[in-house]
Amino acid sequence: MAEPTLQQNTLFQRCSDSFIKEIRARAQKQHHSKGKVLFVHGDQAERFYFIKSGWVKIFRETPAGTQVVVDIFSAGQIFGETAIFEDSIYPYSAEVVEKGDVVSLPLSNLKLEMESNNKFALDMLACMARYRRKQDTEIEHRSTQNAAQRIGCFLLHLADPSETGSVKIHLPYDKTLVAARLGMQPETFSRALAKLRDKTGIHIKGADIEMDSLNQLIGYVCVACSSEFPCKDLKAAQ
Amino acid sequence: MAEPTLQQNTLFQRCSDSFIKEIRARAQKQHHSKGKVLFVHGDQAERFYFIKSGWVKIFRETPAGTQVVVDIFSAGQIFGETAIFEDSIYPYSAEVVEKGDVVSLPLSNLKLEMESNNKFALDMLACMARYRRKQDTEIEHRSTQNAAQRIGCFLLHLADPSETGSVKIHLPYDKTLVAARLGMQPETFSRALAKLRDKTGIHIKGADIEMDSLNQLIGYVCVACSSEFPCKDLKAAQ
Repeated sequence: MAEPTLQQNTLFQRCSDSFIKEIRARAQKQHHSKGKVLFVHGDQAERFYFIKSGWVKIFRETPAGTQVVVDIFSAGQIFGETAIFEDSIYPYSAEVVEKGDVVSLPLSNLKLEMESNNKFALDMLACMARYRRKQDTEIEHRSTQNAAQRIGCFLLHLADPSETGSVKIHLPYDKTLVAARLGMQPETFSRALAKLRDKTGIHIKGADIEMDSLNQLIGYVCVACSSEFPCKDLKAAQ
Repeated sequence: MAEPTLQQNTLFQRCSDSFIKEIRARAQKQHHSKGKVLFVHGDQAERFYFIKSGWVKIFRETPAGTQVVVDIFSAGQIFGETAIFEDSIYPYSAEVVEKGDVVSLPLSNLKLEMESNNKFALDMLACMARYRRKQDTEIEHRSTQNAAQRIGCFLLHLADPSETGSVKIHLPYDKTLVAARLGMQPETFSRALAKLRDKTGIHIKGADIEMDSLNQLIGYVCVACSSEFPCKDLKAAQ
Protein backbone atom coordinates (compact mmCIF):
# COMPACT_ATOMS: atom_id res chain seq x y z
CA MET A 1 0.00 0.00 0.00
CA ALA A 2 1.40 3.41 -0.98
CA GLU A 3 2.22 5.78 1.86
CA PRO A 4 -0.26 8.62 2.29
CA THR A 5 0.71 12.16 1.29
CA LEU A 6 -0.16 15.34 3.15
CA GLN A 7 -2.31 16.55 0.27
CA GLN A 8 -4.53 13.47 0.62
CA ASN A 9 -5.51 14.63 4.11
CA THR A 10 -8.85 16.51 3.85
CA LEU A 11 -7.36 19.46 5.68
CA PHE A 12 -4.76 20.19 3.03
CA GLN A 13 -6.80 19.91 -0.15
CA ARG A 14 -7.25 23.64 -0.64
CA CYS A 15 -3.94 24.88 0.72
CA SER A 16 -1.81 27.18 -1.41
CA ASP A 17 0.97 26.07 -3.76
CA SER A 18 3.44 28.24 -1.88
CA PHE A 19 2.57 26.46 1.38
CA ILE A 20 3.12 23.03 -0.19
CA LYS A 21 6.38 24.14 -1.73
CA GLU A 22 7.68 25.68 1.52
CA ILE A 23 6.60 22.81 3.71
CA ARG A 24 8.09 20.18 1.40
CA ALA A 25 11.43 21.92 1.61
CA ARG A 26 11.34 21.97 5.39
CA ALA A 27 9.82 18.49 6.02
CA GLN A 28 11.85 15.95 7.99
CA LYS A 29 10.94 12.29 7.71
CA GLN A 30 12.14 9.90 10.39
CA HIS A 31 11.67 6.25 11.18
CA HIS A 32 10.73 5.65 14.81
CA SER A 33 10.68 2.49 16.92
CA LYS A 34 7.89 1.57 19.31
CA GLY A 35 8.21 3.57 22.53
CA LYS A 36 9.80 6.67 20.96
CA VAL A 37 8.48 9.80 22.68
CA LEU A 38 8.14 12.58 20.08
CA PHE A 39 7.28 15.39 22.50
CA VAL A 40 6.02 15.89 26.02
CA HIS A 41 3.04 17.89 27.31
CA GLY A 42 4.30 21.39 28.09
CA ASP A 43 7.19 21.33 25.58
CA GLN A 44 7.70 24.37 23.38
CA ALA A 45 6.16 23.50 20.01
CA GLU A 46 7.85 24.32 16.71
CA ARG A 47 6.65 21.45 14.55
CA PHE A 48 3.57 19.38 13.87
CA TYR A 49 3.56 15.80 12.62
CA PHE A 50 2.18 13.74 9.75
CA ILE A 51 2.09 9.95 10.06
CA LYS A 52 3.28 7.97 7.03
CA SER A 53 3.03 4.57 8.74
CA GLY A 54 2.64 3.15 12.25
CA TRP A 55 0.55 4.38 15.18
CA VAL A 56 1.06 7.28 17.58
CA LYS A 57 -0.51 7.60 21.02
CA ILE A 58 -1.47 11.06 22.31
CA PHE A 59 -1.69 11.19 26.10
CA ARG A 60 -1.58 13.25 29.29
CA GLU A 61 -0.62 12.33 32.85
CA THR A 62 -2.14 13.27 36.21
CA PRO A 63 -0.02 14.13 39.30
CA ALA A 64 -1.26 10.83 40.76
CA GLY A 65 0.51 9.08 37.87
CA THR A 66 -2.47 7.97 35.81
CA GLN A 67 -1.89 8.08 32.08
CA VAL A 68 -4.88 9.20 29.99
CA VAL A 69 -4.90 8.28 26.31
CA VAL A 70 -6.49 11.21 24.47
CA ASP A 71 -6.37 9.57 21.05
CA ILE A 72 -4.44 7.15 18.86
CA PHE A 73 -3.54 8.31 15.35
CA SER A 74 -2.54 6.32 12.28
CA ALA A 75 -1.18 6.78 8.75
CA GLY A 76 -2.55 9.86 6.97
CA GLN A 77 -3.35 11.77 10.16
CA ILE A 78 -1.65 14.79 11.71
CA PHE A 79 -1.06 15.68 15.37
CA GLY A 80 0.61 18.45 17.37
CA GLU A 81 -1.02 21.12 15.19
CA THR A 82 -3.30 22.36 18.00
CA ALA A 83 -0.23 23.85 19.73
CA ILE A 84 -0.92 26.82 17.42
CA PHE A 85 -3.87 27.64 19.68
CA GLU A 86 -2.00 26.95 22.92
CA ASP A 87 0.69 29.66 22.86
CA SER A 88 2.98 27.22 21.00
CA ILE A 89 2.99 24.70 23.84
CA TYR A 90 2.06 21.06 23.16
CA PRO A 91 -1.15 20.34 25.08
CA TYR A 92 -0.34 16.61 25.30
CA SER A 93 2.50 14.10 24.91
CA ALA A 94 3.04 11.87 21.85
CA GLU A 95 4.59 8.40 21.75
CA VAL A 96 5.01 5.93 18.89
CA VAL A 97 3.10 2.74 19.79
CA GLU A 98 3.61 0.88 16.50
CA LYS A 99 6.87 1.62 14.66
CA GLY A 100 6.71 3.63 11.48
CA ASP A 101 7.66 6.77 9.57
CA VAL A 102 6.62 10.17 10.83
CA VAL A 103 7.19 13.48 9.04
CA SER A 104 7.68 16.63 11.10
CA LEU A 105 6.71 19.99 9.60
CA PRO A 106 7.09 23.60 10.79
CA LEU A 107 4.12 25.00 12.69
CA SER A 108 5.09 28.51 11.51
CA ASN A 109 4.12 27.60 7.93
CA LEU A 110 0.82 26.18 9.09
CA LYS A 111 0.10 29.37 11.03
CA LEU A 112 0.99 31.57 8.06
CA GLU A 113 -1.25 29.55 5.74
CA MET A 114 -4.13 29.77 8.21
CA GLU A 115 -3.73 33.55 8.41
CA SER A 116 -3.34 34.18 4.70
CA ASN A 117 -5.58 31.57 3.04
CA ASN A 118 -9.18 31.78 4.23
CA LYS A 119 -10.14 28.55 2.43
CA PHE A 120 -7.56 26.72 4.53
CA ALA A 121 -8.88 28.35 7.72
CA LEU A 122 -12.39 27.23 6.77
CA ASP A 123 -11.23 23.65 6.16
CA MET A 124 -9.48 23.70 9.52
CA LEU A 125 -12.73 24.86 11.12
CA ALA A 126 -14.60 22.01 9.44
CA CYS A 127 -12.02 19.52 10.80
CA MET A 128 -12.29 20.98 14.28
CA ALA A 129 -16.08 20.78 14.11
CA ARG A 130 -15.91 17.09 13.17
CA TYR A 131 -13.54 16.48 16.06
CA ARG A 132 -15.89 18.33 18.39
CA ARG A 133 -18.76 16.04 17.35
CA LYS A 134 -16.53 12.99 17.87
CA GLN A 135 -15.72 14.20 21.39
CA ASP A 136 -19.37 15.02 22.15
CA THR A 137 -20.24 11.47 21.18
CA GLU A 138 -17.44 10.06 23.31
CA ILE A 139 -18.59 12.05 26.36
CA GLU A 140 -22.14 10.86 25.68
CA HIS A 141 -21.06 7.24 25.50
CA ARG A 142 -19.32 7.46 28.87
CA SER A 143 -22.81 8.16 30.30
CA THR A 144 -25.09 6.03 28.14
CA GLN A 145 -23.11 2.95 27.11
CA ASN A 146 -21.80 0.19 29.32
CA ALA A 147 -18.21 -1.01 28.79
CA ALA A 148 -19.32 -3.84 26.46
CA GLN A 149 -21.30 -1.43 24.28
CA ARG A 150 -18.34 0.95 24.10
CA ILE A 151 -16.11 -1.86 22.84
CA GLY A 152 -18.83 -2.79 20.33
CA CYS A 153 -18.94 0.82 19.13
CA PHE A 154 -15.15 0.83 18.71
CA LEU A 155 -15.42 -2.33 16.59
CA LEU A 156 -18.24 -0.91 14.46
CA HIS A 157 -15.98 2.00 13.54
CA LEU A 158 -13.35 -0.38 12.25
CA ALA A 159 -15.86 -2.13 9.97
CA ASP A 160 -17.13 -1.24 6.52
CA PRO A 161 -20.68 -0.04 7.33
CA SER A 162 -21.99 -1.13 3.91
CA GLU A 163 -21.06 -4.79 4.56
CA THR A 164 -24.23 -6.92 4.70
CA GLY A 165 -22.73 -10.42 5.04
CA SER A 166 -20.26 -11.93 7.50
CA VAL A 167 -17.58 -9.63 8.81
CA LYS A 168 -14.06 -10.04 10.17
CA ILE A 169 -12.60 -7.14 12.13
CA HIS A 170 -8.93 -7.01 13.04
CA LEU A 171 -7.94 -4.99 16.12
CA PRO A 172 -5.49 -2.33 14.88
CA TYR A 173 -3.27 -2.43 17.97
CA ASP A 174 -2.94 -4.56 21.07
CA LYS A 175 -5.81 -5.00 23.52
CA THR A 176 -4.10 -3.11 26.35
CA LEU A 177 -3.95 -0.07 24.09
CA VAL A 178 -7.56 -0.48 22.95
CA ALA A 179 -8.53 -0.59 26.64
CA ALA A 180 -6.51 2.57 27.35
CA ARG A 181 -8.02 4.33 24.31
CA LEU A 182 -11.47 3.52 25.73
CA GLY A 183 -10.47 4.70 29.20
CA MET A 184 -10.80 1.21 30.71
CA GLN A 185 -8.59 -0.84 32.98
CA PRO A 186 -7.33 -4.02 31.21
CA GLU A 187 -9.42 -6.22 33.57
CA THR A 188 -12.57 -4.20 32.86
CA PHE A 189 -11.84 -4.50 29.14
CA SER A 190 -11.47 -8.31 29.30
CA ARG A 191 -14.69 -8.75 31.27
CA ALA A 192 -16.57 -6.35 28.97
CA LEU A 193 -15.29 -8.09 25.82
CA ALA A 194 -16.53 -11.43 27.19
CA LYS A 195 -19.90 -9.80 27.95
CA LEU A 196 -20.07 -8.38 24.41
CA ARG A 197 -19.42 -11.87 23.03
CA ASP A 198 -22.17 -13.37 25.21
CA LYS A 199 -24.68 -10.63 24.33
CA THR A 200 -24.07 -10.55 20.57
CA GLY A 201 -22.70 -13.96 19.59
CA ILE A 202 -19.52 -12.57 17.99
CA HIS A 203 -16.45 -14.81 17.82
CA ILE A 204 -13.14 -13.62 19.26
CA LYS A 205 -9.88 -15.20 18.07
CA GLY A 206 -6.98 -13.19 19.43
CA ALA A 207 -7.00 -9.88 17.58
CA ASP A 208 -9.69 -11.06 15.10
CA ILE A 209 -13.38 -10.59 15.75
CA GLU A 210 -15.83 -12.42 13.49
CA MET A 211 -19.59 -12.20 13.15
CA ASP A 212 -22.30 -13.31 10.69
CA SER A 213 -23.51 -9.74 10.27
CA LEU A 214 -22.79 -6.27 11.65
CA ASN A 215 -26.41 -6.23 12.84
CA GLN A 216 -25.33 -8.44 15.75
CA LEU A 217 -23.31 -5.50 17.07
CA ILE A 218 -25.59 -2.67 15.90
CA GLY A 219 -28.64 -4.06 17.73
CA TYR A 220 -26.78 -4.23 21.03
CA VAL A 221 -24.63 -1.09 20.76
CA CYS A 222 -26.54 1.66 18.97
CA VAL A 223 -29.64 1.63 21.18
CA ALA A 224 -27.51 3.49 23.76
CA CYS A 225 -26.35 6.22 21.35
CA SER A 226 -28.09 9.33 20.03
CA SER A 227 -26.67 8.81 16.51
CA GLU A 228 -28.00 6.32 13.97
CA PHE A 229 -25.77 3.71 12.36
CA PRO A 230 -23.85 4.33 10.16
CA CYS A 231 -23.06 7.44 12.15
CA LYS A 232 -21.29 10.33 10.52
CA ASP A 233 -20.37 11.57 14.01
CA LEU A 234 -17.39 9.35 14.46
CA LYS A 235 -15.76 9.53 11.05
CA ALA A 236 -12.08 10.31 11.36
CA ALA A 237 -11.67 13.92 12.37
CA GLN A 238 -8.71 14.53 10.11
CA MET B 1 -26.28 43.86 36.00
CA ALA B 2 -26.36 45.04 32.38
CA GLU B 3 -27.27 42.42 29.80
CA PRO B 4 -24.31 41.18 27.74
CA THR B 5 -23.95 42.25 24.12
CA LEU B 6 -22.80 40.09 21.24
CA GLN B 7 -19.66 42.22 20.78
CA GLN B 8 -18.57 41.38 24.34
CA ASN B 9 -18.34 37.71 23.37
CA THR B 10 -14.68 36.94 22.48
CA LEU B 11 -15.76 35.47 19.18
CA PHE B 12 -17.20 38.70 17.84
CA GLN B 13 -14.52 41.19 18.78
CA ARG B 14 -12.94 41.35 15.34
CA CYS B 15 -16.02 40.93 13.20
CA SER B 16 -16.75 43.46 10.47
CA ASP B 17 -18.97 46.52 10.86
CA SER B 18 -21.16 45.31 8.02
CA PHE B 19 -21.75 42.01 9.84
CA ILE B 20 -22.77 43.81 13.05
CA LYS B 21 -25.05 46.16 11.13
CA GLU B 22 -26.72 43.34 9.18
CA ILE B 23 -27.13 41.06 12.15
CA ARG B 24 -28.57 43.80 14.35
CA ALA B 25 -31.23 44.46 11.76
CA ARG B 26 -32.17 40.80 11.61
CA ALA B 27 -31.90 39.94 15.33
CA GLN B 28 -35.02 38.71 17.14
CA LYS B 29 -35.11 38.91 20.93
CA GLN B 30 -37.63 36.79 22.80
CA HIS B 31 -38.40 36.07 26.43
CA HIS B 32 -38.73 32.35 27.11
CA SER B 33 -40.14 30.46 30.09
CA LYS B 34 -38.48 27.43 31.65
CA GLY B 35 -39.15 24.35 29.55
CA LYS B 36 -39.31 26.15 26.17
CA VAL B 37 -37.71 23.99 23.48
CA LEU B 38 -35.90 26.25 21.00
CA PHE B 39 -35.01 23.56 18.47
CA VAL B 40 -34.71 19.80 18.21
CA HIS B 41 -31.76 17.67 17.08
CA GLY B 42 -32.18 17.11 13.33
CA ASP B 43 -34.17 20.31 12.67
CA GLN B 44 -33.18 22.43 9.69
CA ALA B 45 -31.05 25.28 11.09
CA GLU B 46 -31.47 28.87 9.92
CA ARG B 47 -30.58 30.74 13.08
CA PHE B 48 -28.10 30.64 15.96
CA TYR B 49 -28.73 31.99 19.44
CA PHE B 50 -27.21 34.45 21.89
CA ILE B 51 -28.27 34.31 25.56
CA LYS B 52 -29.05 37.65 27.22
CA SER B 53 -30.25 36.08 30.50
CA GLY B 54 -31.25 32.67 31.87
CA TRP B 55 -29.81 29.22 31.15
CA VAL B 56 -30.16 26.92 28.15
CA LYS B 57 -29.59 23.18 28.15
CA ILE B 58 -28.11 21.51 25.04
CA PHE B 59 -28.92 17.82 24.85
CA ARG B 60 -29.34 14.70 22.74
CA GLU B 61 -31.46 11.57 23.21
CA THR B 62 -30.75 7.90 22.62
CA PRO B 63 -33.31 5.49 21.09
CA ALA B 64 -33.49 3.88 24.57
CA GLY B 65 -34.82 7.22 25.86
CA THR B 66 -31.81 8.42 27.82
CA GLN B 67 -31.26 12.16 27.69
CA VAL B 68 -27.64 13.28 27.51
CA VAL B 69 -26.84 16.85 28.53
CA VAL B 70 -24.06 18.05 26.22
CA ASP B 71 -23.66 21.46 27.88
CA ILE B 72 -25.51 24.19 29.75
CA PHE B 73 -25.03 27.75 28.51
CA SER B 74 -25.64 31.07 30.25
CA ALA B 75 -25.75 34.83 29.56
CA GLY B 76 -23.15 35.99 27.03
CA GLN B 77 -22.80 32.62 25.31
CA ILE B 78 -23.96 31.47 21.88
CA PHE B 79 -25.28 28.10 20.74
CA GLY B 80 -26.60 26.51 17.55
CA GLU B 81 -23.76 28.00 15.50
CA THR B 82 -22.10 24.63 14.86
CA ALA B 83 -25.00 23.75 12.52
CA ILE B 84 -22.92 25.63 9.92
CA PHE B 85 -20.61 22.61 9.86
CA GLU B 86 -23.43 20.05 9.91
CA ASP B 87 -25.13 20.74 6.57
CA SER B 88 -27.38 23.28 8.34
CA ILE B 89 -28.88 20.66 10.67
CA TYR B 90 -28.85 21.20 14.43
CA PRO B 91 -26.62 18.50 15.96
CA TYR B 92 -28.45 18.68 19.31
CA SER B 93 -31.65 19.97 20.95
CA ALA B 94 -31.90 23.16 23.04
CA GLU B 95 -34.27 23.85 25.94
CA VAL B 96 -34.54 26.83 28.30
CA VAL B 97 -33.89 25.60 31.86
CA GLU B 98 -33.97 28.98 33.62
CA LYS B 99 -36.25 31.62 32.08
CA GLY B 100 -34.64 34.52 30.29
CA ASP B 101 -34.13 36.47 27.09
CA VAL B 102 -32.59 34.82 24.06
CA VAL B 103 -31.71 36.56 20.77
CA SER B 104 -31.86 34.56 17.56
CA LEU B 105 -29.63 35.59 14.64
CA PRO B 106 -29.32 34.38 11.03
CA LEU B 107 -26.73 31.66 10.43
CA SER B 108 -26.35 32.90 6.84
CA ASN B 109 -24.71 36.12 8.09
CA LEU B 110 -22.35 34.16 10.33
CA LYS B 111 -21.37 31.95 7.40
CA LEU B 112 -20.76 34.94 5.14
CA GLU B 113 -18.61 36.65 7.78
CA MET B 114 -16.60 33.47 8.28
CA GLU B 115 -15.99 33.20 4.53
CA SER B 116 -15.13 36.85 3.94
CA ASN B 117 -13.33 37.94 7.13
CA ASN B 118 -10.32 35.76 7.89
CA LYS B 119 -9.79 37.38 11.31
CA PHE B 120 -13.25 36.16 12.29
CA ALA B 121 -12.49 32.66 10.98
CA LEU B 122 -9.29 32.65 13.08
CA ASP B 123 -11.18 33.74 16.21
CA MET B 124 -13.71 31.00 15.56
CA LEU B 125 -10.84 28.50 15.30
CA ALA B 126 -9.44 29.72 18.62
CA CYS B 127 -12.89 29.26 20.24
CA MET B 128 -13.19 25.76 18.80
CA ALA B 129 -9.71 24.90 20.06
CA ARG B 130 -10.63 26.03 23.59
CA TYR B 131 -13.79 23.93 23.42
CA ARG B 132 -11.76 20.95 22.22
CA ARG B 133 -9.47 21.27 25.25
CA LYS B 134 -12.49 21.51 27.54
CA GLN B 135 -13.88 18.32 26.02
CA ASP B 136 -10.50 16.54 26.22
CA THR B 137 -10.42 17.38 29.92
CA GLU B 138 -13.97 16.18 30.40
CA ILE B 139 -13.21 12.86 28.71
CA GLU B 140 -10.08 12.58 30.86
CA HIS B 141 -12.03 13.20 34.06
CA ARG B 142 -14.49 10.44 33.22
CA SER B 143 -11.48 8.08 33.47
CA THR B 144 -9.38 9.62 36.23
CA GLN B 145 -11.76 11.29 38.67
CA ASN B 146 -14.36 9.65 40.86
CA ALA B 147 -17.84 11.20 41.05
CA ALA B 148 -16.96 13.26 44.17
CA GLN B 149 -13.88 14.69 42.47
CA ARG B 150 -15.88 15.59 39.37
CA ILE B 151 -18.37 17.55 41.50
CA GLY B 152 -15.42 19.23 43.24
CA CYS B 153 -13.99 20.21 39.84
CA PHE B 154 -17.36 21.65 38.79
CA LEU B 155 -17.39 23.74 42.00
CA LEU B 156 -13.81 24.95 41.49
CA HIS B 157 -14.83 26.33 38.10
CA LEU B 158 -17.55 28.40 39.72
CA ALA B 159 -15.10 29.96 42.17
CA ASP B 160 -12.72 32.88 41.80
CA PRO B 161 -9.34 31.09 41.60
CA SER B 162 -7.50 34.05 43.15
CA GLU B 163 -9.55 33.84 46.38
CA THR B 164 -7.27 32.91 49.29
CA GLY B 165 -9.69 33.14 52.22
CA SER B 166 -13.08 31.54 52.90
CA VAL B 167 -15.28 30.92 49.87
CA LYS B 168 -18.99 30.63 49.24
CA ILE B 169 -20.08 29.03 45.99
CA HIS B 170 -23.67 29.16 44.81
CA LEU B 171 -24.88 26.38 42.49
CA PRO B 172 -26.04 28.13 39.30
CA TYR B 173 -28.97 25.80 38.68
CA ASP B 174 -30.74 23.00 40.52
CA LYS B 175 -28.89 19.88 41.64
CA THR B 176 -30.74 17.55 39.25
CA LEU B 177 -29.40 19.63 36.36
CA VAL B 178 -25.87 19.73 37.80
CA ALA B 179 -26.04 15.93 38.05
CA ALA B 180 -27.22 15.67 34.43
CA ARG B 181 -24.49 18.08 33.27
CA LEU B 182 -21.93 15.80 34.94
CA GLY B 183 -23.50 12.68 33.40
CA MET B 184 -24.59 11.30 36.79
CA GLN B 185 -27.83 9.83 38.08
CA PRO B 186 -29.36 12.03 40.83
CA GLU B 187 -28.72 9.28 43.44
CA THR B 188 -25.05 9.01 42.40
CA PHE B 189 -24.76 12.79 42.61
CA SER B 190 -26.21 12.91 46.16
CA ARG B 191 -23.92 10.14 47.41
CA ALA B 192 -20.89 11.72 45.74
CA LEU B 193 -21.67 15.18 47.15
CA ALA B 194 -21.82 13.67 50.66
CA LYS B 195 -18.50 11.92 50.00
CA LEU B 196 -16.96 15.21 48.81
CA ARG B 197 -18.14 16.88 52.04
CA ASP B 198 -16.63 14.09 54.17
CA LYS B 199 -13.33 14.11 52.28
CA THR B 200 -12.82 17.88 52.15
CA GLY B 201 -14.76 19.36 55.08
CA ILE B 202 -16.85 21.71 52.92
CA HIS B 203 -20.26 22.83 54.23
CA ILE B 204 -23.35 22.32 52.10
CA LYS B 205 -26.45 24.42 52.77
CA GLY B 206 -28.95 23.82 49.99
CA ALA B 207 -27.51 25.46 46.88
CA ASP B 208 -24.68 27.15 48.82
CA ILE B 209 -21.32 25.49 49.39
CA GLU B 210 -18.95 27.05 51.91
CA MET B 211 -15.33 26.34 52.78
CA ASP B 212 -12.46 27.96 54.68
CA SER B 213 -10.23 27.89 51.61
CA LEU B 214 -10.33 26.62 48.02
CA ASN B 215 -7.31 24.47 48.93
CA GLN B 216 -9.72 22.07 50.64
CA LEU B 217 -11.14 21.24 47.23
CA ILE B 218 -7.93 21.62 45.18
CA GLY B 219 -6.03 19.08 47.27
CA TYR B 220 -8.69 16.43 46.80
CA VAL B 221 -9.73 17.15 43.21
CA CYS B 222 -6.72 18.21 41.15
CA VAL B 223 -4.49 15.23 41.96
CA ALA B 224 -6.66 13.28 39.51
CA CYS B 225 -6.30 15.79 36.65
CA SER B 226 -3.47 16.43 34.20
CA SER B 227 -3.93 20.23 34.41
CA GLU B 228 -2.70 22.40 37.26
CA PHE B 229 -5.04 24.67 39.21
CA PRO B 230 -6.00 27.31 38.17
CA CYS B 231 -6.44 25.50 34.88
CA LYS B 232 -6.86 27.42 31.69
CA ASP B 233 -8.31 24.28 30.12
CA LEU B 234 -11.78 24.74 31.39
CA LYS B 235 -12.30 28.46 30.90
CA ALA B 236 -15.57 29.13 29.12
CA ALA B 237 -15.23 28.09 25.51
CA GLN B 238 -17.15 31.01 24.14
